[in-house]
Amino acid sequence: MFLKRILLGSPLKTAQAAHERLSKRLALAVFSSDALSSVAYATEEILLVLILVGAAALSYSIPVSIAIVLLLTVLTLSYQQIIYEYPAGGGAYTVSKANLGIWPGLIAAAALMIDYVLTVAVSVAAGVAALTSAVPELLPHRVVIGLATIILVLLVNLRGVRESGKFFATPTYIFIGSLFFMLGMGAMRIMSGQPAEAVVCQPVVAETTEALTLFVLLRAFSSGCTALTGVEVISNGVSAFRKPEPRNASITMASMAIILGAMFIGISAMAHHLHITPCADETVVSQIARATFGTGFMYYLIQISTMLILFLAANSAYNGFPRLASLLAKDSYMPHQMALMGDRLVFSNGIVFLGGFSCFLIWFFDGDTHALIPLYAVGVFLSFTLSQAGMVKRWLAKKGPHWRKKLAINGIGAVATAIATVIIGSTKFMHGAWIVVALLPLIILWFRSIHAHYEAVDEQITLERDHRPPQPRKNTIIVPISGVNRAVIRALDYARGRSADIRAVLVNIEPEQSAKIEMQWAQWGCGVQLVVLPSPYRSVLVTLLDYIEDTLEKDPQGWVTVVIPEILPARWWQNILHNQRALMLKGALLFKDRVVLTDVPFHLER
Amino acid sequence: MFLKRILLGSPLKTAQAAHERLSKRLALAVFSSDALSSVAYATEEILLVLILVGAAALSYSIPVSIAIVLLLTVLTLSYQQIIYEYPAGGGAYTVSKANLGIWPGLIAAAALMIDYVLTVAVSVAAGVAALTSAVPELLPHRVVIGLATIILVLLVNLRGVRESGKFFATPTYIFIGSLFFMLGMGAMRIMSGQPAEAVVCQPVVAETTEALTLFVLLRAFSSGCTALTGVEVISNGVSAFRKPEPRNASITMASMAIILGAMFIGISAMAHHLHITPCADETVVSQIARATFGTGFMYYLIQISTMLILFLAANSAYNGFPRLASLLAKDSYMPHQMALMGDRLVFSNGIVFLGGFSCFLIWFFDGDTHALIPLYAVGVFLSFTLSQAGMVKRWLAKKGPHWRKKLAINGIGAVATAIATVIIGSTKFMHGAWIVVALLPLIILWFRSIHAHYEAVDEQITLERDHRPPQPRKNTIIVPISGVNRAVIRALDYARGRSADIRAVLVNIEPEQSAKIEMQWAQWGCGVQLVVLPSPYRSVLVTLLDYIEDTLEKDPQGWVTVVIPEILPARWWQNILHNQRALMLKGALLFKDRVVLTDVPFHLER
Repeated sequence: MFLKRILLGSPLKTAQAAHERLSKRLALAVFSSDALSSVAYATEEILLVLILVGAAALSYSIPVSIAIVLLLTVLTLSYQQIIYEYPAGGGAYTVSKANLGIWPGLIAAAALMIDYVLTVAVSVAAGVAALTSAVPELLPHRVVIGLATIILVLLVNLRGVRESGKFFATPTYIFIGSLFFMLGMGAMRIMSGQPAEAVVCQPVVAETTEALTLFVLLRAFSSGCTALTGVEVISNGVSAFRKPEPRNASITMASMAIILGAMFIGISAMAHHLHITPCADETVVSQIARATFGTGFMYYLIQISTMLILFLAANSAYNGFPRLASLLAKDSYMPHQMALMGDRLVFSNGIVFLGGFSCFLIWFFDGDTHALIPLYAVGVFLSFTLSQAGMVKRWLAKKGPHWRKKLAINGIGAVATAIATVIIGSTKFMHGAWIVVALLPLIILWFRSIHAHYEAVDEQITLERDHRPPQPRKNTIIVPISGVNRAVIRALDYARGRSADIRAVLVNIEPEQSAKIEMQWAQWGCGVQLVVLPSPYRSVLVTLLDYIEDTLEKDPQGWVTVVIPEILPARWWQNILHNQRALMLKGALLFKDRVVLTDVPFHLER
Repeated sequence: MFLKRILLGSPLKTAQAAHERLSKRLALAVFSSDALSSVAYATEEILLVLILVGAAALSYSIPVSIAIVLLLTVLTLSYQQIIYEYPAGGGAYTVSKANLGIWPGLIAAAALMIDYVLTVAVSVAAGVAALTSAVPELLPHRVVIGLATIILVLLVNLRGVRESGKFFATPTYIFIGSLFFMLGMGAMRIMSGQPAEAVVCQPVVAETTEALTLFVLLRAFSSGCTALTGVEVISNGVSAFRKPEPRNASITMASMAIILGAMFIGISAMAHHLHITPCADETVVSQIARATFGTGFMYYLIQISTMLILFLAANSAYNGFPRLASLLAKDSYMPHQMALMGDRLVFSNGIVFLGGFSCFLIWFFDGDTHALIPLYAVGVFLSFTLSQAGMVKRWLAKKGPHWRKKLAINGIGAVATAIATVIIGSTKFMHGAWIVVALLPLIILWFRSIHAHYEAVDEQITLERDHRPPQPRKNTIIVPISGVNRAVIRALDYARGRSADIRAVLVNIEPEQSAKIEMQWAQWGCGVQLVVLPSPYRSVLVTLLDYIEDTLEKDPQGWVTVVIPEILPARWWQNILHNQRALMLKGALLFKDRVVLTDVPFHLER
């Protein structure tokens, strides 16, 4: 508990929850980092597809990037409408469930869950890549660095959302500022005709392997679509904004889209002008920064702030995932404890869950961004599509002012994201998207089975109309003993007066010992009956269980309370020296109906 | 439980224990395999030391072997006297503790514990070496084979001692028979002047590195002394023999010593006559067998029976170790559960303990016999010495008929084993014996700290003369609820009538929900008071704990019983979906004095 306080800070009151609301400036840092940080790898992923055709094909990155920015515009307009319609938080799960029904809702939820985990994994992997581009010596340790980062972000998040915002605002704005400075400097250099410094590195692909087909262009588009992952995050967190929440969230979303679009197009254009090809051990952004500034202060600032915003992106998933998990838990599709608030106003269980799975991915894919990317965008775009489709259905049903315009915007959004989903799913199916396609039904099955269980439980524990609690029933108290000592007398002291029928029970393993105990009992037993049980099998446990079973059979209505005198040591490791039998007894009795276990503690002082 | 029955068989009655006694023939298989199997590696270990001086020095193996057989004779005579004096089982711990005091007893016990573990590890490693000599393809898998063997022997032993005896009698006698057949055939071949087939193998040592000094001869002697490990096992298990136990045990011991001495001298002589040098991937016994029979049926019979008797030796430690552990547990030097008999008349806990540590050694030393040997004999000879010294002191104190003769025998035994212990400890100190020397005090410290704890506990729980149990004290029953359902009503049904002061307690997290519960309570609460607690921190746990603390403070004498309505799912994995709060509550309350935890189960049917 003490360690928990140091690591996580003091608990916060519910009344403080309102003060936890975020200003637009902080909200941009917390909720937009996922989207903004995508520029660190999106252009590179496009180039990685095109280079398979040859260096000449790299110029296609410009039209591909423009197509993606157009898609961004459609998405932003669509999501702004969702923000106004669902000010309490309009995640894909909420919107799909409300308008399309529970199955689309669960599909969206499953897709989102996968993608939150992937956001953490991809962002941390890419952040570590930014670091190892600047410090190649760290390349062999990228998995360890990645795992350490995830655990660090996890701890920060267990502290609560506002502190995360403050903690991360500075690096976000440094990232935005320094990246725009780099793009500006680069543009000036190009216009003034200064030559770029050559970056020498090992090319990631040795020779041309494919022809330039529509499929390759679509694959490049799919890879670039990772730039759009995270744009929906704001719509999940509207309730975290200051009042008026929808307006502030909508403005923040527009700002984010403009910054994201400008940075993405800028990086793609710069990479094209500098004739940059993807390298095995240096990122494209690192190459651009080195070509622009040389390996000096500004270069390192770019790399460090890129790394930090990517870690921020991971952090952003820690805001969204637990919220989704708690929504699902409230609807009984996830374990109910996911809905329990920790004492730092956060959903602690979900945070730990997310961190664990991301660590697994980093470890499994060896911390390699490119290996993780094909799994990434398909879930995001599936949830985009379901959200927009839900909104289309909403406008058709609800109508209201300007509904035709709103329907058109969400309709275009739905069609565009549906097409993108199909493109991403098909062009990347073999490269990893199949894993997501295979996982989706499994996760939904899991949701359903949890739901079915809770429904069955509710049915079983609901009080029927005609049910009236019966009068108190007979209670037989059994105190198993293996000697006469203060712990036993204390348990007896507790049991006396609770029931007319109390029996101390001794299993006769060694007759001499038993005779001695019977004599002591005459003196100390307070008149309570001592039952000595023969034990042909020398198993204390089996003999006791048989006796309890017999007692239950004799009174088919009554309770049997087993009062266990439990010696509790002063130090935890001493537990191995005590209570082994009590533990086994408890384990065995847990499954008996009408048997009530009662522990009477006797605390040792040393 | 069902799986346990299949693997371990049905439980046995105490009355059956007498029938578990072993005939001499079976006892030889169970208790002598440790000693007899040593011939599989003892000669080889002598040669491995001498070869460092050069091939010419190998002939010194004969006098070294004769010295060891003389020591065997002394030991056997000494131990026969122990058998008659301690028919209940005269292990080194018992004899040393009774005659020399608790400290020598604990030293002997610690030494024996180390050696039981090493017996398993060394025997299994050597058994696997016998296998890989015949089937070299298995050499890379020796660690896995070793671990699998230990686990197999462990399961066999959890089934009980007699079945082990029957199971293993056949291979023991095949080993003895086939080895004597090999020695006889070899002797005839040599006398008839037939040339031995040459065995080609990679020599274990490339060149001569040492001069022939007394130290080298003593080291060879030390290595050969591993042949004597296990001769004491019979004296630990006298009580397992049929009546008259001491006589049967003594006769069995003599038979074993004669068989052991003959085989050991025979193998050393044969190795000498065949000019055998130790190989890296084939054992000396395998070389002799191949030279005698060629690679045919008899060769494989020798190898398989050697392997099996070595695994039997491991099994023999499974008989001795748990008996020692239970003796120590009865004296409170080991956790008391070590003295609990499992339901197959064996000491299950000790068996699992032994198997675990042996697996560790096999894994740590890569399954290499030669690496384990230097750790082996020092502990055995230390316990020999303490036993014999104890007997010397016993004769001096007790006297009795022929005591001078008996004193002389044990005296010679004590001096001889003391000298051997010093030789083994010093010549092998650097090669691994230091580990044992370092471990001994740690184990003894561990024994003492367990003992000190149990003594402190006894002192704390002993009933003082003037202590009289007080009259029953007030009991406040608290039933924490989070809703009104059948599980809660069932707990209430149990609690009613047990105390005048019952309170259902609800922590107010969501006011609407709480209001609804209060309304339901009016209908179903059976007139029991419902306390609604405000929770500024939204932590159910903290709020409940504070309330319980308050209640305790208000009545500094009384009990507080926390009755927890516990929903028990039909399937174990469903537990993750329930009772998370109950579990945390129980964990937090465990350390509060005067708080009694009571679980009222509500069993779900699906």
